[in-house]
Amino acid sequence: MKTKKVAVIGASGYSGEVLVQLLLDHPHAELVAVTSRQNAGQTLAQVFPKFASHPKSKSLRFTEPNVEVLAKKADVVFLALPHGVAAEYAVPLLNAGAIVIDLSADFRLKSAEIYKEFYAHEHPAPELLKKSVYGLPEIYREQIKKSMLVASPGCYPTSILLPLIPLLKSGLIKSSGIIADSLSGVSGAGRKVEGEYLFVECNESVRPYGVPKHRHLSEIEEQLSLAAKSQVTIQFTPHLIPVNRGILTTLYLEPKEKLSEEKISACYKKFYGSEPFVRLLEGKSLPDTKNVVGTNYIEIAWRLDPRTNRLIVMSAEDNLVKGASGQAVQSMNIICGFTETAGLI
Amino acid sequence: MKTKKVAVIGASGYSGEVLVQLLLDHPHAELVAVTSRQNAGQTLAQVFPKFASHPKSKSLRFTEPNVEVLAKKADVVFLALPHGVAAEYAVPLLNAGAIVIDLSADFRLKSAEIYKEFYAHEHPAPELLKKSVYGLPEIYREQIKKSMLVASPGCYPTSILLPLIPLLKSGLIKSSGIIADSLSGVSGAGRKVEGEYLFVECNESVRPYGVPKHRHLSEIEEQLSLAAKSQVTIQFTPHLIPVNRGILTTLYLEPKEKLSEEKISACYKKFYGSEPFVRLLEGKSLPDTKNVVGTNYIEIAWRLDPRTNRLIVMSAEDNLVKGASGQAVQSMNIICGFTETAGLI
Amino acid sequence: MKTKKVAVIGASGYSGEVLVQLLLDHPHAELVAVTSRQNAGQTLAQVFPKFASHPKSKSLRFTEPNVEVLAKKADVVFLALPHGVAAEYAVPLLNAGAIVIDLSADFRLKSAEIYKEFYAHEHPAPELLKKSVYGLPEIYREQIKKSMLVASPGCYPTSILLPLIPLLKSGLIKSSGIIADSLSGVSGAGRKVEGEYLFVECNESVRPYGVPKHRHLSEIEEQLSLAAKSQVTIQFTPHLIPVNRGILTTLYLEPKEKLSEEKISACYKKFYGSEPFVRLLEGKSLPDTKNVVGTNYIEIAWRLDPRTNRLIVMSAEDNLVKGASGQAVQSMNIICGFTETAGLI
Amino acid sequence: MKTKKVAVIGASGYSGEVLVQLLLDHPHAELVAVTSRQNAGQTLAQVFPKFASHPKSKSLRFTEPNVEVLAKKADVVFLALPHGVAAEYAVPLLNAGAIVIDLSADFRLKSAEIYKEFYAHEHPAPELLKKSVYGLPEIYREQIKKSMLVASPGCYPTSILLPLIPLLKSGLIKSSGIIADSLSGVSGAGRKVEGEYLFVECNESVRPYGVPKHRHLSEIEEQLSLAAKSQVTIQFTPHLIPVNRGILTTLYLEPKEKLSEEKISACYKKFYGSEPFVRLLEGKSLPDTKNVVGTNYIEIAWRLDPRTNRLIVMSAEDNLVKGASGQAVQSMNIICGFTETAGLI
Repeated sequence: MKTKKVAVIGASGYSGEVLVQLLLDHPHAELVAVTSRQNAGQTLAQVFPKFASHPKSKSLRFTEPNVEVLAKKADVVFLALPHGVAAEYAVPLLNAGAIVIDLSADFRLKSAEIYKEFYAHEHPAPELLKKSVYGLPEIYREQIKKSMLVASPGCYPTSILLPLIPLLKSGLIKSSGIIADSLSGVSGAGRKVEGEYLFVECNESVRPYGVPKHRHLSEIEEQLSLAAKSQVTIQFTPHLIPVNRGILTTLYLEPKEKLSEEKISACYKKFYGSEPFVRLLEGKSLPDTKNVVGTNYIEIAWRLDPRTNRLIVMSAEDNLVKGASGQAVQSMNIICGFTETAGLI
Repeated sequence: MKTKKVAVIGASGYSGEVLVQLLLDHPHAELVAVTSRQNAGQTLAQVFPKFASHPKSKSLRFTEPNVEVLAKKADVVFLALPHGVAAEYAVPLLNAGAIVIDLSADFRLKSAEIYKEFYAHEHPAPELLKKSVYGLPEIYREQIKKSMLVASPGCYPTSILLPLIPLLKSGLIKSSGIIADSLSGVSGAGRKVEGEYLFVECNESVRPYGVPKHRHLSEIEEQLSLAAKSQVTIQFTPHLIPVNRGILTTLYLEPKEKLSEEKISACYKKFYGSEPFVRLLEGKSLPDTKNVVGTNYIEIAWRLDPRTNRLIVMSAEDNLVKGASGQAVQSMNIICGFTETAGLI
Repeated sequence: MKTKKVAVIGASGYSGEVLVQLLLDHPHAELVAVTSRQNAGQTLAQVFPKFASHPKSKSLRFTEPNVEVLAKKADVVFLALPHGVAAEYAVPLLNAGAIVIDLSADFRLKSAEIYKEFYAHEHPAPELLKKSVYGLPEIYREQIKKSMLVASPGCYPTSILLPLIPLLKSGLIKSSGIIADSLSGVSGAGRKVEGEYLFVECNESVRPYGVPKHRHLSEIEEQLSLAAKSQVTIQFTPHLIPVNRGILTTLYLEPKEKLSEEKISACYKKFYGSEPFVRLLEGKSLPDTKNVVGTNYIEIAWRLDPRTNRLIVMSAEDNLVKGASGQAVQSMNIICGFTETAGLI
Repeated sequence: MKTKKVAVIGASGYSGEVLVQLLLDHPHAELVAVTSRQNAGQTLAQVFPKFASHPKSKSLRFTEPNVEVLAKKADVVFLALPHGVAAEYAVPLLNAGAIVIDLSADFRLKSAEIYKEFYAHEHPAPELLKKSVYGLPEIYREQIKKSMLVASPGCYPTSILLPLIPLLKSGLIKSSGIIADSLSGVSGAGRKVEGEYLFVECNESVRPYGVPKHRHLSEIEEQLSLAAKSQVTIQFTPHLIPVNRGILTTLYLEPKEKLSEEKISACYKKFYGSEPFVRLLEGKSLPDTKNVVGTNYIEIAWRLDPRTNRLIVMSAEDNLVKGASGQAVQSMNIICGFTETAGLI
């Protein structure tokens, strides 16, 4: 397998750090550049002491993000940048022939208007929205294969879309009235040095935020609408809980017809039975973030409630791996023709 | 104000411990007895080192629970015992003239059949179900005043009922389709020495449990049905999160009519405007367990979602105080004619 | 008891917040002013939602720190400010006749030179160093009574000095070779919005810092030297651990003569037997921060190791209460002639 | 490289679980048997949901520990059993020709008397004490290569011995007066279902325990004495802190001669400069457990204190990896002739 040269722009945030970790040990990728304005000039070992024993950690230095240089050096460039900024880099990188895997929200939506509604600024490169592929491999594997620009999904969206899309596509649930209640670890906010993310403010605390209109709703609803083939509007409430990593999502759904847990099981097995990173829980097990943290797996379980005639679906993932960097590497593996699980656990 | 003599049966669990703490410092109560089979013979200071500096901690010893002795010694007896066991003590204590405040589920329901359905054994004293009062002071203050047997509500029910009852009584929301999604700290499980509550199993973990039919549904639905004057069935999903104390509940509700946040605010102010322990959050604030842990307060906030036409109500309380022992002391204050806030913060 | 009017300058940090909490509920103090540059204009309820149910929380507003106004309004002024800044306020307040209780390091040392060595700037008001009293009530109660300027001790120093001073004064241990190994919760760093105090950086992490010359050494060694009547130099290693509050200190000491645990016990009882906030642990108990957090107590235990002939002394305190704000209130109680435990638990 | 068949006896504790994890993904090992009395009959996937996606997790079932069967099946057998029990299995396994890597304390000491002093029972197989090799690869690599019975070191001993042995062997520090102050995550206690390890009892708590004579002292002092070529007695204080994994040790040492940090650096580089799992921290870095958790690395840093003329050495490791299962796998790699880092990160 020919090794690909890869670069990470914005490698000092939490998802950038996990990307670096995965790429350093990837069997078919060679990490050739990492950029970070604030850490430019420092080695990987200096910025991330835990990588200090990796052979590359003392030679690889953070640089300023110079697109021309990066486009020459790297076959694949990951963008781990804030929304709005990512697009600025994507355009010249694509023009220079690089494959771009963007972890920001910039290319996740098809509509520049909805982008503006949710992100409060004009889309910086609307012409690319048609070319980008939403990087959820379980749903868009074939499109990802042929793409030069992958918009890797958000952490909450991944935890919501993977359980919902099979049910909607199979017509097992109503597309109206969907409620997603999510609990996220603090790394989900990124490495933001703000008072509300201090240890003392998060520890021994649980709180909802962004109620009722979180930005991730835009991509969630666009994807659900595509699956349902009709406009879907959902209720979504994120909560911050005192763990480093992990998202637990509980979905409240209404069956379209008379459902059994076996029917749901059959639906999920049809969609995900041979998926390498989807773990369908059967028997009495319920998802627990501690079983997926550090891995690219998502756990999914479901219960029908005969008292309310509702379907409860629960998922657990690591927001930084399946919800961000692991999934981005999974897309790279697909594009580059590597084994899809290469470098991922 | 004449001091009342009080006893706590089952004082070695988490809610028993908080009861002891509140009663030791209560201005009008004198703690005269604490019982615990496993700790009989030991002093308060030996069992709870943190009470060691209280003047009573070295003289007050745990005893075996002898009902006759306790009934003579104490005017008010708190039962912090498992369901099924509490009823055995309540009967003779009431016969001996003591006021009984029970923190178990034994006297919370009016129906012995529903008790059996949810607790899987015959009710031990069904004749008392008519006499007991559900100890939610904000709703049943007048009945509590005259009661000899208070069934203090469960922790989840308190976090769900206080936000819901005013909306149902005012007819602002539909009584169908209610969803309660709750997150509880680990002390909510009691001091159970079981593998799943070990530090390593709970820390860096988030998980749902008891899906879809948790026992607390029985009292929640009975109380909601009384408020709505019709049978109410709700969806309830509890989750375990790695904090010691605190419950955060998110409620998903459907307005009955065209609602505004002002109308909801007016409703809550009418019901709770002069309540000493209900904190209605206005402006941009959302509940956070860290603002109520250690206190008898419950925080309530609400948001209308114009996109889904749903009403989201969120509450935060300390499961061991407003959700258990603080609320029980509040009932004692009411029955005994003390200031309702005496000994509570 | 005549109520005293009190003010807190710098009330938005963690120790400021705890001071406000203690003073709001103090039976003999009336909180008349709180200042904070960043929160000026906001009410207590807006800045600290957990105080929102206190009757004063909506009327009392943070102001800019105007010394003239504060000196007129308040009998006692607490300074919860960074070192260097506190002194600027102390001088005019004292001139205006206010009692000043300073929680910073500015008046803890007798020597302006040592201050400069450890704090890296000239002392702003060296003439006041003679007038200030080191606010460790167990050691300096009589001097505090007559003082107008109390320098409330640091959190680490309190946890180290209270266990050591009796042993040194009694000549039971050598004054050389003392080692203090301390573990502190994250609130000990103050409400500093810096990357290293983010939840994700502190949670699931333990680390030493400030090795080998932490600033607190200056006041620790000055006080130990006074107790030993000779120059004392100690080894001190602070560590950051993932709890909100609490300091656990382990001291490694060399007995001067043949010691027994009884002799040590007798020494501690002589010094602290009637101290309201020192809890001497006997029997098998060892200190645990969870037994003192939220209170003004310090727990002390000791063990002789016959294998090494060393004495191990361990202490636990809440860094924000006995280690900061509780101790400062204790000093106020002493100066004002209140019961020493008033408003403290 | 020929694959070796391996078995884990006692695979349901925390170190057993990590062993299973490492062996499942080991490039040259095939996990053929796992035993656990309490889980006999269940699959790996049932007992450890997080392994559920591994191809072997549904076929590999826990069995009762039958030594004859295991000896036939496996080339290498890991014992993750309590002390006293491990020896019972070691004898027949060795007789049957298996390589035994024991994670208990049973074969770590050379003296059956000291074993009895510290473990309070007669050694079950004293004749094996001469044959066993103490499995610290950095010190005993050559002996491990030729051994059939490796006694893998304890977690605290590893964190103390690796930093100390080079200094003692080089004669840079005195062998008297050594103090080791250690902080351990809760998994260090094993998966013990006891009240003191419940989440609520450990979270927001820090406490010393086992003062002054912890069992691990026996192996620590035996190894230090061998390194110093004279009897060494040390002071050791373990503390429990609320993290899942990680040990941070702070060592207080007295230089034998005039030392410089460069001299210490040179000593460590000589001993560990080409060690794959020892990370010597230079510059301003200090150890932090979060940089080593999940890996087989140990971080070591040192500071000379000119004020006290003491040397402070600090180490950080994952108690379950370098302190237990990772180190055991490292020994297996050495014995079997695999790359020493195979299957380890």
